[in-house]
Amino acid sequence: MHKYFLTIVFLLSCVATRVYADEGMYPLSEIHKLNLKSKGLKVTARDIYNPGHIGLIDAIVQVGGCTGSFVSPEGLIITNHHCAFGAVQAASSKEHDYVTDGFLAKDKSEELPAKGYVARITDSYRDVSKEVLSAVNDIMDFVARTKAIEKKTKEMVAEVEKLNPGKRAEVAEMFAGKSYMMFVYTFLKDVRAVYVPPRSIGEFGGEDDNWVWPRHTGDFSFMRAYVAPDGSPAEYSPNNIPYHPKKFLKVAAEGVDENDAVFILGYPGRTYRHRTSYFLSYEEDVRMPYVADLYQWEIATMEAMGKNDHAVAIKLSGRIKSLGNVMKNYRGKLKGMKRLELTNKKRQEETALQTFIDADGDRKKLYGHILSEIGKVYDDMHTQAQYEFALDNLRQACVSLSVGYTLFEAAQELKKPDLERESPYMEKNFPRTKESLQLALQNYHELTDKIFLKEMLTRASKLSVGQRIPAVDSIIRGGNPAEAIDRFIDRAYATSTMNDEKPVMDALAKSPEELEQLNDPFLQLAKALFPTYQQLKETRQRREGILSKNSGLLVDVKQQLLKKDFIPDANSTLRLTFGNVKGYSPADALYASPITTLRGVIDKTTGEEPYNTPQKIIELYKAKNFGRFKHKKLNDVPIALLYNLDTTGGNSGSPLLNARGELVGVNFDRAYEATINDYAWSESYSRSIAVDIRYVLWVMQKFAGADFLLKEMRVQTSS
Amino acid sequence: MHKYFLTIVFLLSCVATRVYADEGMYPLSEIHKLNLKSKGLKVTARDIYNPGHIGLIDAIVQVGGCTGSFVSPEGLIITNHHCAFGAVQAASSKEHDYVTDGFLAKDKSEELPAKGYVARITDSYRDVSKEVLSAVNDIMDFVARTKAIEKKTKEMVAEVEKLNPGKRAEVAEMFAGKSYMMFVYTFLKDVRAVYVPPRSIGEFGGEDDNWVWPRHTGDFSFMRAYVAPDGSPAEYSPNNIPYHPKKFLKVAAEGVDENDAVFILGYPGRTYRHRTSYFLSYEEDVRMPYVADLYQWEIATMEAMGKNDHAVAIKLSGRIKSLGNVMKNYRGKLKGMKRLELTNKKRQEETALQTFIDADGDRKKLYGHILSEIGKVYDDMHTQAQYEFALDNLRQACVSLSVGYTLFEAAQELKKPDLERESPYMEKNFPRTKESLQLALQNYHELTDKIFLKEMLTRASKLSVGQRIPAVDSIIRGGNPAEAIDRFIDRAYATSTMNDEKPVMDALAKSPEELEQLNDPFLQLAKALFPTYQQLKETRQRREGILSKNSGLLVDVKQQLLKKDFIPDANSTLRLTFGNVKGYSPADALYASPITTLRGVIDKTTGEEPYNTPQKIIELYKAKNFGRFKHKKLNDVPIALLYNLDTTGGNSGSPLLNARGELVGVNFDRAYEATINDYAWSESYSRSIAVDIRYVLWVMQKFAGADFLLKEMRVQTSS
Repeated sequence: MHKYFLTIVFLLSCVATRVYADEGMYPLSEIHKLNLKSKGLKVTARDIYNPGHIGLIDAIVQVGGCTGSFVSPEGLIITNHHCAFGAVQAASSKEHDYVTDGFLAKDKSEELPAKGYVARITDSYRDVSKEVLSAVNDIMDFVARTKAIEKKTKEMVAEVEKLNPGKRAEVAEMFAGKSYMMFVYTFLKDVRAVYVPPRSIGEFGGEDDNWVWPRHTGDFSFMRAYVAPDGSPAEYSPNNIPYHPKKFLKVAAEGVDENDAVFILGYPGRTYRHRTSYFLSYEEDVRMPYVADLYQWEIATMEAMGKNDHAVAIKLSGRIKSLGNVMKNYRGKLKGMKRLELTNKKRQEETALQTFIDADGDRKKLYGHILSEIGKVYDDMHTQAQYEFALDNLRQACVSLSVGYTLFEAAQELKKPDLERESPYMEKNFPRTKESLQLALQNYHELTDKIFLKEMLTRASKLSVGQRIPAVDSIIRGGNPAEAIDRFIDRAYATSTMNDEKPVMDALAKSPEELEQLNDPFLQLAKALFPTYQQLKETRQRREGILSKNSGLLVDVKQQLLKKDFIPDANSTLRLTFGNVKGYSPADALYASPITTLRGVIDKTTGEEPYNTPQKIIELYKAKNFGRFKHKKLNDVPIALLYNLDTTGGNSGSPLLNARGELVGVNFDRAYEATINDYAWSESYSRSIAVDIRYVLWVMQKFAGADFLLKEMRVQTSS
Repeated sequence: MHKYFLTIVFLLSCVATRVYADEGMYPLSEIHKLNLKSKGLKVTARDIYNPGHIGLIDAIVQVGGCTGSFVSPEGLIITNHHCAFGAVQAASSKEHDYVTDGFLAKDKSEELPAKGYVARITDSYRDVSKEVLSAVNDIMDFVARTKAIEKKTKEMVAEVEKLNPGKRAEVAEMFAGKSYMMFVYTFLKDVRAVYVPPRSIGEFGGEDDNWVWPRHTGDFSFMRAYVAPDGSPAEYSPNNIPYHPKKFLKVAAEGVDENDAVFILGYPGRTYRHRTSYFLSYEEDVRMPYVADLYQWEIATMEAMGKNDHAVAIKLSGRIKSLGNVMKNYRGKLKGMKRLELTNKKRQEETALQTFIDADGDRKKLYGHILSEIGKVYDDMHTQAQYEFALDNLRQACVSLSVGYTLFEAAQELKKPDLERESPYMEKNFPRTKESLQLALQNYHELTDKIFLKEMLTRASKLSVGQRIPAVDSIIRGGNPAEAIDRFIDRAYATSTMNDEKPVMDALAKSPEELEQLNDPFLQLAKALFPTYQQLKETRQRREGILSKNSGLLVDVKQQLLKKDFIPDANSTLRLTFGNVKGYSPADALYASPITTLRGVIDKTTGEEPYNTPQKIIELYKAKNFGRFKHKKLNDVPIALLYNLDTTGGNSGSPLLNARGELVGVNFDRAYEATINDYAWSESYSRSIAVDIRYVLWVMQKFAGADFLLKEMRVQTSS
């Protein structure tokens, strides 16, 4: 028995060490427990976050699904090029191709409104676990449980927002089914583009270099947040004035060097490190391969569409980029999971945990069934996978149907009281939902849409008995399914107005009855699909209920044994991660050092996309015109930095800060091997990438002639 | 004037240093001048080559266009997998897929005759420059000059071979138009395959990894040379006995480590380092891009052919592999030439040289026109490029036409006295020419051949006025060229027998008149093309005459100034190169270390071609069953080695030798950046790759169970 327990403790202490050493995305509530000094940092936890006082977190902003930071008292924000891409693409026209040429506002009056962008700054948080969980009890069914939590949090948010006009509140689930935090945000609705480098700098290397180190991309841009003249958040108006942040970051123009301690504050989106082996197996064997293959096909289709038509290529470029990003990320994850045998390791940990649970009668009674109940949920997801993927991607792939569905759903939802609506249709969110529709329609390309719809209907038409979709069966009823699908598509696109901004915006105000009268084929298809999607939603709520309840218990029993604090998975709330500028070995006999140089840009330059460097940069390089932004040892402008910090999507645009909390880079990607960060952290492979602040400043001064912005950031241009 | 001369001397001393430090392919005549001890070698020049005595060179053999070395007293040869590939492919059948499965002869009786393979060992050499150049004079026209040298060398060779029955002689041009060496070779005609690993080891990484470091390919094989029972060279016979080499290499099972001194003896094929900027510009701007694009298209076509037909895929695999090898090499060279600005640098050197020449009246008179005369030759080649490429590739791409042309030409040539014939039709070479035809027909695939012929005829049909090919014009005369080409192809393939071994071999014995009666469309096309090809040959002889004469003068005037010995370009004669096991930086922020490991093989293994490792290897790795072949520090079997030696094609299979002259690896490739070796050597980039002898021995013992071969090589299997 003794030996037996030793084995368990050994196995679980591996888990513990791994969990503790690896998980580096610390929420605000955990920061005060850290010994930052021992990590080489000179800032204290209070410098970062001190409730009721100003801290570094007041300079951190969530913008465009990314992170940014204030770098001037005038609300100037630095973030990634790819974070501002949508705004720049939307502001471009035939006359002004800002995507290709870049954009510099010579003064504030020239700054471009970034449609659909908001800036969110964390004001405060508090633990609301008890309040949230008071809404559920052990005898509820699981759908009711999920709905109760949703309802409760909506009510709590509404209450806080009512008490804090102009602010936004959000309840974030920290540990599923176990702990919840209420965050209050300052919410700025007027954001403008200030400087965006040309694509040949900001996207240098393109999809080829995405998720790749060594990297040479100038992935940065500048935006600015505006407020009403009285300082309150307001929609865009020419009368608005720059926002004055409580705090802005000092820019450290001297940069950092290899091994230096650095940290990041940002809004990492999602990680899944507390999930089970069942989840990992579903991701690895089922979902990611399906999505990666589908996206690869979608990308190839869109590339073929744009091949001989530049205008179409531009329309589709954003979508190609975002699907490509996911696809390559998934391929990287799949490779990493296989190499690290992640699923298998997690399974071994769970076997050890189960052994520990089963060893005690009371423990077994309380926790004995957790893992098998979670397992059953994923068994069901395995079984239903083809059916659910068909439904999910039918709407995601096809713009016309997606717009039709949103209109149909909006008409249903808008009848309800605000708090009972689905989130996109709540009053506070509805303007952004409209803007998303507009953006989708701006980039609409009919032939692509037809091909995608045909593919997804064809997939749906081949589902097995028991997984049939009635709306799809109606389309293919009687006769050859392929021909029926073709007939439906020809007719639908000939008569639908779901791809035209004006009628779509008009229809957004209509009641269900008025919509019915439009007789639009995509609205009709949406209506026919509606019950199926509602049913799927309920299935997922049931699963979420089961997982939520059991996940909470799982964390409990792990903590009982290990007597350690766990760090919650990333959930788009503000996090701290720290470490060092550090290279790694991506493969046998290869070592990647952590600072790239302008010479590397020149070496990669072929003169063709995506390696097409502006002539002026080449000339500056040849003239060794590096100004004060030179890395002394490398005798060159440093371009990008690599470090062992723990980041994920959402951390894009996060400031990379030196030991004193000064800006030395802008985080924008991870190395290919670090795509697995979402599932596990590895000291050997988890490396993130920033554009070096010296490259940012050098481009601004020497290439863009934006000295006035450097001045605004209080950066000296001569040393 | 002083300052002016300093500039020249500075520029030229750069040239000198570069030339002297870089060129490391030393011919036998230069070895005694080297201070090998200072390079870390323990062998002396005499250990390597000592006229009249036995030296290491007696263990070096040229085989299958590669180098090999004797590793046992019984004529056992180690060389590359890719060097034996043709033999193994030819010996394979539906029943025995030796290419996929590998092959081990359990005893000598099972060894497979390697059709078309000969083994050549250098016996001696002597300078014959005077004798060769006595055949030319300054008033000859340039065609006559080239022909005179050809004729003279053929006569000299015939004389030497008559005096040394069974030997082969060859006159090698060392410096074009300037110096010539007569080499005498032992020439063994019965070569057999002994051990070839499965393709998943010997070709691990396939085309993906070709020209790539870090590398994990077990690119080795064993062959054996046989002679008649009386010890004389003989064609294959079951009565033949193993050849007893004068010398065989000791195998150093303990291997080498990073920084260790190593050297290579081998038969590098061709380098072009003494050529001018005109040559480089022609290669970079004209020839290599054309060939790389054409081959890429040919490869894609053949891959499409084999996609759904495994038998076709196997037939075409060798050709795909060899075209792919050239294509990737050219792409690498083009990239390297651009990065290093080779052409431009060479041009600067020539400008400096011209300045030096022009500065002295006598010098100017003697050498003033060299560069411009060479330049004119390349101007002409630029102008004629499309015409000549069309002609060259018409025959190279299409097997039926190539066979037809060979038959037609053979009939013309065989009428002549032996010494006046083109080399392939001379008595001593004709059997190999026949074997080549047989091999080409074994891998013949009609549809591929048709597509290639159509493409090349189409290209030829579009040539501009003044570059028309009469034979092609006859095909397309009157009407639509594309339709005419289709008609010709349909008819030709329907009736020709040029793709069938039996009639082709029969036809090889026929007179021109008898061939004429066959009425074969490809023989007729060959006949129609013959005058055009003869004219092209003469054009090239004229160019060669001009280049040869001027190149000799160019070396003279360079040597006058620099007062240094130059090393002649590689020319398939035996060379020595030395240096160290050493990593390099292939790109900004990347460092590649010089020893790969079995872990890297496992990491790369996907289970699919070309990364499909035998299960037994995976199991041996998991069990850490490395035996005595482990690299202590890396705690793993070392797979491949990287070193800064100067190699090129033809060095494939060369022994990598430690300081004591013992075998530690088998050279098989270069790093991608080292594809430029043919034009320039660079300490930063020129790296060559060997399979580590420890991997060879480990595979032989642990995987193949070939202990008896290790015993034959006197390798202990336990430490």
